[in-house]
Amino acid sequence: MKTKVAAFAVSLDGFGAGPRQSLNDPLGVRGTEIHNWFFHTEVFNQMTGHTNLIGHSDLGRGVDNDFGFRSFENMGAWVMGRYMFGPVRGPWPDDSWKGWWGDNPPFHTPVFVLTHHARATLAMEGGTTFYFVTDGPESALKQAKEAAGGKDVRIGGGVATLRQYLIAGQIDEMHLAVSPVLLGEGEHLFSGINLHQLGFKVERSVAGERATHVLLKK
Amino acid sequence: MKTKVAAFAVSLDGFGAGPRQSLNDPLGVRGTEIHNWFFHTEVFNQMTGHTNLIGHSDLGRGVDNDFGFRSFENMGAWVMGRYMFGPVRGPWPDDSWKGWWGDNPPFHTPVFVLTHHARATLAMEGGTTFYFVTDGPESALKQAKEAAGGKDVRIGGGVATLRQYLIAGQIDEMHLAVSPVLLGEGEHLFSGINLHQLGFKVERSVAGERATHVLLKK
Repeated sequence: MKTKVAAFAVSLDGFGAGPRQSLNDPLGVRGTEIHNWFFHTEVFNQMTGHTNLIGHSDLGRGVDNDFGFRSFENMGAWVMGRYMFGPVRGPWPDDSWKGWWGDNPPFHTPVFVLTHHARATLAMEGGTTFYFVTDGPESALKQAKEAAGGKDVRIGGGVATLRQYLIAGQIDEMHLAVSPVLLGEGEHLFSGINLHQLGFKVERSVAGERATHVLLKK
Repeated sequence: MKTKVAAFAVSLDGFGAGPRQSLNDPLGVRGTEIHNWFFHTEVFNQMTGHTNLIGHSDLGRGVDNDFGFRSFENMGAWVMGRYMFGPVRGPWPDDSWKGWWGDNPPFHTPVFVLTHHARATLAMEGGTTFYFVTDGPESALKQAKEAAGGKDVRIGGGVATLRQYLIAGQIDEMHLAVSPVLLGEGEHLFSGINLHQLGFKVERSVAGERATHVLLKK
């Protein structure tokens, strides 16, 4: 049972998201560019059902797809920050926002969303249930581990959430997809964080079709 | 005629050198690890003559070697910072330090060394001549361009020198070798520098045997 980061896209210059996230730019300005490798995989297009961003003619079943597929294997629960869940800020005005992913989100597990504002648990189609955790990241991870039933917990993101768990020493393994893109600005994944000191080593580095996949382990 | 950075090794977490450079650690602590791809190439071992760091049995002639080889093509002059030239600090006590590279350095062109302390020009075997420039990086680049005779100028390093020319907008092209290594600390290559805003785009990303080669162009 591990706490993992998986299929986490990062630009060549180290940014895990673009700047100025909004409803129109859920991943920040130009943030989608670092996810290009994933949009081209079969696993992404199956996952999103009818929402096919790139058209079925170009579906990939190569290295990128393998890594994308594996990123969902053996996951028993997810933890994510509120910005990954949506663009709504402050107290929840109502229950209308149900995530970026439609009625049947691709998680199919309990998902613990970090927020400062209480909200009722939200059961979606396909086995995804969003729990809104107001007593901090440590509590969220504890609840996720209990809910995971012996499987792994995935820290979904975003960058701020990932950094928080990294610094706390709570992440065991990270699969990053380094995309050949320069964002120039945005949310830097590792700035000021000493991964070597935290005990991480590069286990593998594999060239995919549209990203380099790097596996970091303690 | 371009001003280029070539075969510049960088760790996965963005460091172009380790911390605490010294006579024993010319590339900073653990800094050699990011150059591992180059030490294994034929071009490196030919270049260094009898100084074969890894033994002839494992000489590479693959992708890494191609990129290493090309990094010396069409170079008419080099510019480097004083730390790349050597570990001596402050006024030169004498003329005994002649670089890390022995009597026949691998440049075979004029090399302009940035320093605050004047020193007589130093002609080495094989066509390398070290000029010590005390009136700043702009002057050094100007002199290098004049000396290059229509060929390219290579900004050799180290990190501080490269950053200086980058921020000044004077670099046209960069070939980076991203090594699957986490340094955790040291000299960060791009921290605080917006490569996108400077006009760089990723032209190519190619997986080598021991590094991913990325070509950035304006």
